Amino acid sequence: MSQNQATYTAPSKNQSLDIVNVYDLEQQASQIIPKGGFDYIAGGAGDEYTLDQNITSFNQKRILPRVLADVENPDTRTTLFGSELPSPIIMAPIAAHGLAHESREVGTAKGVSDYGTILSISTYTGSELSETSKVMGDTPKWFQLYMSKDNEVNKAIIDDAKADGATAIVLTADATVMGNREKDKLNQFVFPFDMPIVSRYLRGFIEDRALNNIYLESKQKINTDDVRFIAEYSDMPVIVKGIQAPEDAIKAIDAGAAGIWVSNHGGRQLDGAPGSFETLALISEAVSKRVPIIFDSGIRRGEHIFKALAMGADCVAIGRPVLYGLALGGAKGVTSVFEYFENDLKRVMQLAGTQTVEDIKKTALV
Amino acid sequence: MSQNQATYTAPSKNQSLDIVNVYDLEQQASQIIPKGGFDYIAGGAGDEYTLDQNITSFNQKRILPRVLADVENPDTRTTLFGSELPSPIIMAPIAAHGLAHESREVGTAKGVSDYGTILSISTYTGSELSETSKVMGDTPKWFQLYMSKDNEVNKAIIDDAKADGATAIVLTADATVMGNREKDKLNQFVFPFDMPIVSRYLRGFIEDRALNNIYLESKQKINTDDVRFIAEYSDMPVIVKGIQAPEDAIKAIDAGAAGIWVSNHGGRQLDGAPGSFETLALISEAVSKRVPIIFDSGIRRGEHIFKALAMGADCVAIGRPVLYGLALGGAKGVTSVFEYFENDLKRVMQLAGTQTVEDIKKTALV
Amino acid sequence: MSQNQATYTAPSKNQSLDIVNVYDLEQQASQIIPKGGFDYIAGGAGDEYTLDQNITSFNQKRILPRVLADVENPDTRTTLFGSELPSPIIMAPIAAHGLAHESREVGTAKGVSDYGTILSISTYTGSELSETSKVMGDTPKWFQLYMSKDNEVNKAIIDDAKADGATAIVLTADATVMGNREKDKLNQFVFPFDMPIVSRYLRGFIEDRALNNIYLESKQKINTDDVRFIAEYSDMPVIVKGIQAPEDAIKAIDAGAAGIWVSNHGGRQLDGAPGSFETLALISEAVSKRVPIIFDSGIRRGEHIFKALAMGADCVAIGRPVLYGLALGGAKGVTSVFEYFENDLKRVMQLAGTQTVEDIKKTALV
Amino acid sequence: MSQNQATYTAPSKNQSLDIVNVYDLEQQASQIIPKGGFDYIAGGAGDEYTLDQNITSFNQKRILPRVLADVENPDTRTTLFGSELPSPIIMAPIAAHGLAHESREVGTAKGVSDYGTILSISTYTGSELSETSKVMGDTPKWFQLYMSKDNEVNKAIIDDAKADGATAIVLTADATVMGNREKDKLNQFVFPFDMPIVSRYLRGFIEDRALNNIYLESKQKINTDDVRFIAEYSDMPVIVKGIQAPEDAIKAIDAGAAGIWVSNHGGRQLDGAPGSFETLALISEAVSKRVPIIFDSGIRRGEHIFKALAMGADCVAIGRPVLYGLALGGAKGVTSVFEYFENDLKRVMQLAGTQTVEDIKKTALV
Repeated sequence: MSQNQATYTAPSKNQSLDIVNVYDLEQQASQIIPKGGFDYIAGGAGDEYTLDQNITSFNQKRILPRVLADVENPDTRTTLFGSELPSPIIMAPIAAHGLAHESREVGTAKGVSDYGTILSISTYTGSELSETSKVMGDTPKWFQLYMSKDNEVNKAIIDDAKADGATAIVLTADATVMGNREKDKLNQFVFPFDMPIVSRYLRGFIEDRALNNIYLESKQKINTDDVRFIAEYSDMPVIVKGIQAPEDAIKAIDAGAAGIWVSNHGGRQLDGAPGSFETLALISEAVSKRVPIIFDSGIRRGEHIFKALAMGADCVAIGRPVLYGLALGGAKGVTSVFEYFENDLKRVMQLAGTQTVEDIKKTALV
Repeated sequence: MSQNQATYTAPSKNQSLDIVNVYDLEQQASQIIPKGGFDYIAGGAGDEYTLDQNITSFNQKRILPRVLADVENPDTRTTLFGSELPSPIIMAPIAAHGLAHESREVGTAKGVSDYGTILSISTYTGSELSETSKVMGDTPKWFQLYMSKDNEVNKAIIDDAKADGATAIVLTADATVMGNREKDKLNQFVFPFDMPIVSRYLRGFIEDRALNNIYLESKQKINTDDVRFIAEYSDMPVIVKGIQAPEDAIKAIDAGAAGIWVSNHGGRQLDGAPGSFETLALISEAVSKRVPIIFDSGIRRGEHIFKALAMGADCVAIGRPVLYGLALGGAKGVTSVFEYFENDLKRVMQLAGTQTVEDIKKTALV
Repeated sequence: MSQNQATYTAPSKNQSLDIVNVYDLEQQASQIIPKGGFDYIAGGAGDEYTLDQNITSFNQKRILPRVLADVENPDTRTTLFGSELPSPIIMAPIAAHGLAHESREVGTAKGVSDYGTILSISTYTGSELSETSKVMGDTPKWFQLYMSKDNEVNKAIIDDAKADGATAIVLTADATVMGNREKDKLNQFVFPFDMPIVSRYLRGFIEDRALNNIYLESKQKINTDDVRFIAEYSDMPVIVKGIQAPEDAIKAIDAGAAGIWVSNHGGRQLDGAPGSFETLALISEAVSKRVPIIFDSGIRRGEHIFKALAMGADCVAIGRPVLYGLALGGAKGVTSVFEYFENDLKRVMQLAGTQTVEDIKKTALV
Repeated sequence: MSQNQATYTAPSKNQSLDIVNVYDLEQQASQIIPKGGFDYIAGGAGDEYTLDQNITSFNQKRILPRVLADVENPDTRTTLFGSELPSPIIMAPIAAHGLAHESREVGTAKGVSDYGTILSISTYTGSELSETSKVMGDTPKWFQLYMSKDNEVNKAIIDDAKADGATAIVLTADATVMGNREKDKLNQFVFPFDMPIVSRYLRGFIEDRALNNIYLESKQKINTDDVRFIAEYSDMPVIVKGIQAPEDAIKAIDAGAAGIWVSNHGGRQLDGAPGSFETLALISEAVSKRVPIIFDSGIRRGEHIFKALAMGADCVAIGRPVLYGLALGGAKGVTSVFEYFENDLKRVMQLAGTQTVEDIKKTALV
């Protein structure tokens, strides 16, 4: 046990949450997650221009209420890569859930599974894959891969994911170097605990668990060959995550990507980039329904989900809000967050006059 | 008498008000209306983006002063559905006036009647229709309907309104579920008194008077058949309220609506919608003078009334400002609010070089 | 002597000022002018949207520095209606200078005259015309007329102005009713002293000197006949002040106006109107150099003067800044304000690469 | 030794800096540089609108992350006028480094030289040219000329620069009069020490070292003849600095300029001008690769460098950040600032998917 592990005390409650909104949730979470951990989770890169833009850019498009639309009890169910989901909302991959709650990824997995949607597990998970799988039952899980420079390592990690029952590989392509997270620098943040996959395969990390060391053995030169390699080796659908340019979407699909994940890593990588929502329209046009589009970065309300779907996404992923729910309520808190978003989306669907997820996708924003 | 009723003490003064502006009025009202009630009246949905946009979007269009226009003593009188009004300003339907003043809707009715314009009475009135009618003399009144799932209930309510002498039915179409009013959630707000029509016909409400229960028996699937049904059954003009999309305006008129009420429910329903003023131009074009347009959501100054009329409205409705006047001065305060708006509009008309309401409608904003 | 006169103590220093900028000047003036007087001078109408817009709208156009323009010692001299002026900066008409300084309009007249530019004297002057004339020598002066409903009164006032040596009549057309000055309402502001012309001809004012009473006998129905009447009766150039619409400029010129004064009365009349600078381009195009254009409302820096001239004005008028200078330094302070603006304009001319006022007028903003 | 010299105590530490961002660096520097000096360095002209716009206007263009670009260890090296540089970042000319650190320009020269990029030395240097040269080895240096009215003085200064080994002359054309630096006025700022070249050739300065006196003997009428004269007399490349208009760029090149330096003098000259970044696109188009473009005014992050290069600059110059580094760490602090920017640019290059400086130049911003 390291020194940090001894002093970092993550929250431990397990309870359902009565969520008013995600901003309050964040505020409450900031009171109980130790500062270094909270800043790591909540912070963005540089001026946090892109982080802010992720949320505020949703106001560039507005939903026109439709009031004679003959809608009742809107239906949020949808299907993604063959999985039937209660709503077009899945769990984004995010590192080190143990910063938020002592149950680590196990708590998240339980909460996501109880809700019934897809969990994306990060290479930087703080729990062993087998631990999270144990609590998930049949809920589908995707494995998010940060590539190593060494393809043998990549194969080994994919083998582990496959053995654990992952149904898709999410290739994170937008984090080949660490973003400029100034809060982490000021906090001199290091992870207060080990991350099993990282420790097993990326040895530079073991010594001090500093953020920069994660990237020492990680691959920078990601290209379409990597997409092909992972698709072939894993024999699973590969979803390329971090797409912000239409050209990259086309390249990825041409190389065999089964899905496009539009994301700017929650504003944590390249500051000065557009809000993720701003990039969706052109990417959706380029993808032209050939593969599903998953969208993240900035979802805080049902209105945001509605707008993302209306602009071309097939589903959205949420990250930070789930960790805040995990911090405040463990697995039960996680479920509460997903239920909050589903209910909020239903309310928006009713007021916007849309009965189904397909109806949302046909809606023109103004 | 319920527990809440015992502890909620609404203001009770009856006095004319010297109004500087509505923002000050709101500030003063917030000092004397109990917090739960004030937040219910003043609050909006979600981020209150749309609530703010309702007011600030008026600045997207500006009035060019015309100074050689040969204008004197501008005339604000107008005619609406055959009623001659002192100004193009009517009372919007709004629930539970008793939150603002112990005289409840009776106080408002007296004040509106003394001013001489149309009163819209809500299904969620806290006074019996007969009580308000008693103080109104010949002043025209409209009845605003929240539909029940059960058409027999709807018929019974329309019968009541007709018996009471209503001259039009305002069908509220934009509130089929409750908006996301976070302040009410935080306040755990329940109505501190009974609402006669609701209690009589919507039984779910009786038990705890919580906001959500109002919607349990209310109709979600509103469509053009409902417009037709109400028009036929009531044999009164039906004005469809909550229109924000040109397509809905056309559908409503084609189904027999006698008027279009452009409104986003004061920013209380779908947050992320445009400011109501922003939707007026296209709706006005779609309506093309076939029926009158009533506009609400955001009117705080004579300039706003002028701009709404110049963009295509035939009259405007005010809601929150009237309840603030009611809180501060009872019936007399209500009259003061209407007189304030009329005088403010006259000043704007003089400075803009417009002699009549028709002149305003011909004015091009810049 | 009235009660107010006894208690209102205006500043009395006479000294040159070292001006850093006009915002600081305003701040300093607010410390020594009694609150009622300061708010009357500094305030605008309604939300003060237009007041703010007057200043901020200058940023809609930017000056591109020209650095190889072969310019030295820029020359600000210009000619207006035959008067040679040290700069294209004149004194705007403004009521009741006695609010700012015990020397009243006499102090302003002395300061303006020492600088050498045109003084516009208001109908609402607090000094007799003969008093101000005594200190002005040959400096040209214009008389600003607020019309009475009674043309005999108008003739008498014009006779007085003519007898006093005025060289032009400025017809204020944009103040037929009082703007919505909320600060004055809150302060229950009345003028603390008599205004000779008003008292002599507009009797309603005498009793209580309240703002509203000024307008009781003033003319609302101003039209092109009035322009013709004043031009003929006075046999002086008539400049129509308060023009914001191109159509009004054309009407005024067609009726014999010798000049167009673009102004929104310093944001004191119709709030919700554009910034005055925003209206200049279209008016300048409509006027098409047939008569000179004077511009006011929002000038606080040399950059603003430069931009107004580049957009089509022939000269600018300043008002509030002069009263602040008067308050802080009497006649000498007034001269300092004009010198400050001239020097600031020279600096801008040098950096923008313009040698003369004509060069400014030929400059394209970006 | 003058009185000021006795009392102005500049910082004196020599240490490497761990820089989080330049805004923090500025904040820290403001704590140790005496107020008069700090305000002189940090301040801008007038409302500081242009100063702010210099930074915020970078957000008008955004970088689209490219994630399948096959990039690793991006290469920031570039060549400028034959000098091989570690990055497209050079030192802008800036007056009186002694305000920031007791080592004066000698400290900056050492730090810049250790980093290995070009130093621009100002006519207003506080160190003798020979002192700075001594610590620089072979690092290329440019001499920035403020022209005197007297061409014999200009020749003498150029002779000195040439004797010192300068490889280019930077002609500052945008500072023919002092900008409106209000903080300096309020501080009654005078330079607390002599500046050798100024004192030797511009005698008005000697007496009181006030800012205005610097400009008494400096040349205002700068035109293309001056460009020709300096190019011929010096027989060095002449780079014209302060270009904001495409027309000036063309004039300068036609007169023999070897480079165009796009700058608005850090927002210190003409307030109300566009942000420097906003002018780059049109100038780049006008220059059309005939000569290199150097860009300054507003660079605070690697993102800004990337954007400037993508919009047409060949390299950027930094000024204020270097002086803050000098204040906090002397020569070592200066080197740290350049290393910070290079690393930040590398991070941006990696995330934007660009391997080389040429790749950046081919990138389209959105």
